[in-house]
Amino acid sequence: MASSQDSALVAEAKKTRNEPVTYNYTEERDIILYNLGIGATETDLQWVYEGDDEFSPIPTFGVIPQFPASMAVPLDWLPDYNPAKLLHGEQFLSIKAPIPTSGQLVSTAKLLEVLDKGKAAAVTIVVETRDTSGQLVTENQSTFFIRGSGGFGGPRAGADRGAATAENAVPKRAPDAVVEEKTTPSQAALYRLSGDWNPLHILPEFAAIGGFNKPILHGLCSMGFSGKHVFQKFGAYKDIKVRFAGVVYPGETLVTEMWKEGHKVIFTTKVKERDSIVLGSAGATLIDDADKAKL
Amino acid sequence: MASSQDSALVAEAKKTRNEPVTYNYTEERDIILYNLGIGATETDLQWVYEGDDEFSPIPTFGVIPQFPASMAVPLDWLPDYNPAKLLHGEQFLSIKAPIPTSGQLVSTAKLLEVLDKGKAAAVTIVVETRDTSGQLVTENQSTFFIRGSGGFGGPRAGADRGAATAENAVPKRAPDAVVEEKTTPSQAALYRLSGDWNPLHILPEFAAIGGFNKPILHGLCSMGFSGKHVFQKFGAYKDIKVRFAGVVYPGETLVTEMWKEGHKVIFTTKVKERDSIVLGSAGATLIDDADKAKL
Repeated sequence: MASSQDSALVAEAKKTRNEPVTYNYTEERDIILYNLGIGATETDLQWVYEGDDEFSPIPTFGVIPQFPASMAVPLDWLPDYNPAKLLHGEQFLSIKAPIPTSGQLVSTAKLLEVLDKGKAAAVTIVVETRDTSGQLVTENQSTFFIRGSGGFGGPRAGADRGAATAENAVPKRAPDAVVEEKTTPSQAALYRLSGDWNPLHILPEFAAIGGFNKPILHGLCSMGFSGKHVFQKFGAYKDIKVRFAGVVYPGETLVTEMWKEGHKVIFTTKVKERDSIVLGSAGATLIDDADKAKL
Repeated sequence: MASSQDSALVAEAKKTRNEPVTYNYTEERDIILYNLGIGATETDLQWVYEGDDEFSPIPTFGVIPQFPASMAVPLDWLPDYNPAKLLHGEQFLSIKAPIPTSGQLVSTAKLLEVLDKGKAAAVTIVVETRDTSGQLVTENQSTFFIRGSGGFGGPRAGADRGAATAENAVPKRAPDAVVEEKTTPSQAALYRLSGDWNPLHILPEFAAIGGFNKPILHGLCSMGFSGKHVFQKFGAYKDIKVRFAGVVYPGETLVTEMWKEGHKVIFTTKVKERDSIVLGSAGATLIDDADKAKL
């Protein structure tokens, strides 16, 4: 997996074998907690009431079981590494099999690509998540930007891995659907209980170190809101990709604009109050009848 | 413990030995989840950020570890028992030692008193909760009214157990402190993740069986909000008692009126929108310097 252009530092980091990380969720509580964390409400019984016939996680829950594994990949070999300077750049989730509502999932992470952006490092981690039978349930690719950690050498531009953002270009017409939803001031405080405990999202002093006026919402939380909007308007999907283009402060209103293009839903998410794009180059591939027969 | 006036049915029920029920909370997550469930916000760092020096549960968390034990006491021996007809009548929490932020607590429940109210049964359960060293951490007394389950014989009026409501009579003056706080429409959906999964609080059809237009907020959730208000205005307390006088619908605004009388804070909680009392005969005993020396 090491590219011939990688610096020795990166080549060494890629050799690290990351131990599989087990995620147990023996209670429906973890599902409901996640769903509430991305704005499910008391009337969404299929998402908040474990006794509902259709009880299920919102599809973007697929980023949760793999999260501890992706975080366990060491990054402290990067020059001047500071976790407060880490930002989530992109996330790609591919749902390979229905996500169980409880059970044990094992995730294995690999360092896929490390780019030297000059003033920052861009690190892409791939995580395969399997159930105890070995069935692949999800694949995630997470790209992180670590500001202040560039200049170590190696390629500046990454490989095209099929989840390319170019294909998620927004059509030149009014969106086919728009969903507007206000987050709560406590949204990040709630969302972090699903496993991303980075103090950037709760502690003002830590957010200040990262260069923010106040704690910011988790990128994956914004992705969850918009992934929920896509599901509500167009139904189930087998993959979803977003680029995190700007920050959201808890309490702000998210507006997801969606365009259906064949089996894909292209979407863009803005913060209404600041007319600022927060998710761009984003798309989801809808499940078609052939997929349903397989799943 | 059986009163000479108890019916044979009640006398038999009181003989039941309830196995101790263990509550594990290995993560601060359970604490934060509870605190958010009773309205803690992102700025209450001592309640929502596990890294805060003062991180702690809001004192009314003391009703949570004991809850599964109190619920495990069988009540289906009551005539025409229907769990949808059960309402929480009163709760008394006595905090005997600081509640740990994680660990294992063992709760043992006893059926203390069963009253025949004619059209309803009133059942009081006492639960002692101890840490693994055997130290008593909390004692709870919970009184439940089970509508439609009366007429089995036995006493109608209960014993005075020191937590008498008479002593919580509201003084004839304006309150010394008032806190107003709006619950969210999803408040019950969030609060139930702390362990009270009764569908009365989430499922409209189930609430209808209980005679309610829509799902109601947990009584212990309202108690938590007001217990938080007492703490915010007057500091720590060693016991708290409430009578549940009316229902709260998630989304309504709670107004806690408080009067300080020596070491006690007497309080009343109303729903603002309906000017309806929901917690009455309520009081908390503040921790004084002598208590602090002991704790």
